[in-house]
Amino acid sequence: MIRIGIYGYGNIGKGVECAIRQNPDMTLAAIFTRRDPSQVKTVFEGAEVASVNDVEKFKDKIDVMIMCGGSATDLPVQTPEIAKYFNVIDSFDTHARIAEHYNNVDKAARAGGTTAIISVGWDPGLFSLNHLYAASILPEGKDYTFWGRGVSQGHSDAIRRVEGVADARQYTVPVPEALEAVRNGENPELTTRMKHTRECYVVAKPGADKAKIEQDIKSMPNYFADYDTTVTFVTQEELEEKHGGLPHQGFVIRSGVTGANSEHKHIIEYSLKLDSNPEFTSSVLLAYARAAFRLNSSGEIGCKTVLDISPAMLSQKSGAELIEYLL
Amino acid sequence: MIRIGIYGYGNIGKGVECAIRQNPDMTLAAIFTRRDPSQVKTVFEGAEVASVNDVEKFKDKIDVMIMCGGSATDLPVQTPEIAKYFNVIDSFDTHARIAEHYNNVDKAARAGGTTAIISVGWDPGLFSLNHLYAASILPEGKDYTFWGRGVSQGHSDAIRRVEGVADARQYTVPVPEALEAVRNGENPELTTRMKHTRECYVVAKPGADKAKIEQDIKSMPNYFADYDTTVTFVTQEELEEKHGGLPHQGFVIRSGVTGANSEHKHIIEYSLKLDSNPEFTSSVLLAYARAAFRLNSSGEIGCKTVLDISPAMLSQKSGAELIEYLL
Repeated sequence: MIRIGIYGYGNIGKGVECAIRQNPDMTLAAIFTRRDPSQVKTVFEGAEVASVNDVEKFKDKIDVMIMCGGSATDLPVQTPEIAKYFNVIDSFDTHARIAEHYNNVDKAARAGGTTAIISVGWDPGLFSLNHLYAASILPEGKDYTFWGRGVSQGHSDAIRRVEGVADARQYTVPVPEALEAVRNGENPELTTRMKHTRECYVVAKPGADKAKIEQDIKSMPNYFADYDTTVTFVTQEELEEKHGGLPHQGFVIRSGVTGANSEHKHIIEYSLKLDSNPEFTSSVLLAYARAAFRLNSSGEIGCKTVLDISPAMLSQKSGAELIEYLL
Repeated sequence: MIRIGIYGYGNIGKGVECAIRQNPDMTLAAIFTRRDPSQVKTVFEGAEVASVNDVEKFKDKIDVMIMCGGSATDLPVQTPEIAKYFNVIDSFDTHARIAEHYNNVDKAARAGGTTAIISVGWDPGLFSLNHLYAASILPEGKDYTFWGRGVSQGHSDAIRRVEGVADARQYTVPVPEALEAVRNGENPELTTRMKHTRECYVVAKPGADKAKIEQDIKSMPNYFADYDTTVTFVTQEELEEKHGGLPHQGFVIRSGVTGANSEHKHIIEYSLKLDSNPEFTSSVLLAYARAAFRLNSSGEIGCKTVLDISPAMLSQKSGAELIEYLL
């Protein structure tokens, strides 16, 4: 049995707690929190909850720690710190800082003799893998990524910071015509505006100026100004009822050519349609926890990414079973 | 530079010859044929063509040999034989015999100190990989595979063996409603007939009994009897003009659930849309040739499958570049 620790107990931590039950070779050892452990209510009864301050006491009780904090401030500090003592998996997703994070985690893991796999999830993660496979197979080609229809938490947060906004939910939506043109091998040149639209569902504070809120959202640089954005005002009840989930979707497409005169087109497409973005990410984290455990058991220490992990490492099945069932 | 040999010069061999030009770290060393080398016309001028009988003389001139023979009788003999002297890649696709082939090739490769990767292509190959990733991430779920719309060479050959048939081309076609139900997460139970239809374009010999041909095709066990099959008679000219290519498509879909009460559905879909089935397969073979070369250089010998190869091994890019561009 692989003994799993959960470090940080938000949406991802809860998703990991659920997913462990789907993996018969794994067991939940403990959940670590910055809050008072006695006040934490877990998804399932009986889970051990401990303080992050006591984590070192669990050194011999946990095989892989799943780091479930946020990428902005938690993981850059926590993953290197915990990697000194435990094999770790994280979903660090600040693309521009992954190289730096990799180096920090690698140093800590090598010092501690542990194995770390960082930036695990779907983007970065499964999408990165699919870009890599597709580009290696079709060296002459063009990559496209579409996100949605799904909730962007970063964009929802940005709207909540607008004056007069009580709550909000933002959906990123691919433009169907753009997706279709890519799938047809037309290799279109697409601007930001041509690829995605943004739908905002906003709860205004009592007495707020709705026209101004709409204008403030639509003109927000980086987040909305470059997109065709729609703003729909709803009540708090409507928001919770109709927009309470965290669904997401995404598409990675490579359009390439082969042949003596580049005369044959090929489309490789990978897509995800997720009812719960955090739970799916949790499931990816656990599959890679299995790989980290195996790598460490065979003496391979240091930091890795999903690009370094052979697919067979993720499976509960043996090599012979994989050949029999999958090839 | 990775020096590539091509062993067998049919559609796949020609595809490899073309694809080498898209990979700047590879060069074509020689093409091996059972025919008289002087009679072989290559796609590009200047390629060295040699007899299979002289292959051992090239031991120090070739880094990876791409085995381009057929799975029925060529590869089971040729891959183990050539693996004694060269790193090899093949696309052996007789699913039921892959375990046996693996053992034969592994023995030869270990004896020769070479590295072999077998059953490379898209099915088996990329489809196997995607089944593995998806099942590892979503342990509670259901797998679906659809093939087409595309030419099945095995089924086309079967029609050509029917009395009165001069030539034929068969398309395998997924049933749109079945594909849609799977994508919607309905987890349908699908019989063979519900998943695919078969379209046959047939050139009858002069004076042949077309009604009997149609009946003979539709009642053929294994190949057609379990499917809704349509037979359309065409002239040889029409067949060559409209059905001369070897396009194919395919879809691997896993529909799974997560959550405390399995309440969240997730769909992972991988699909290929190929203008030229053999050229695409050739491109996959070359990406894995890079991995075989690297594995052998680092002392990892014996037989592997695509499931054992870490994605980063396939890329021309370095580890640092991959982190920068893909994560």
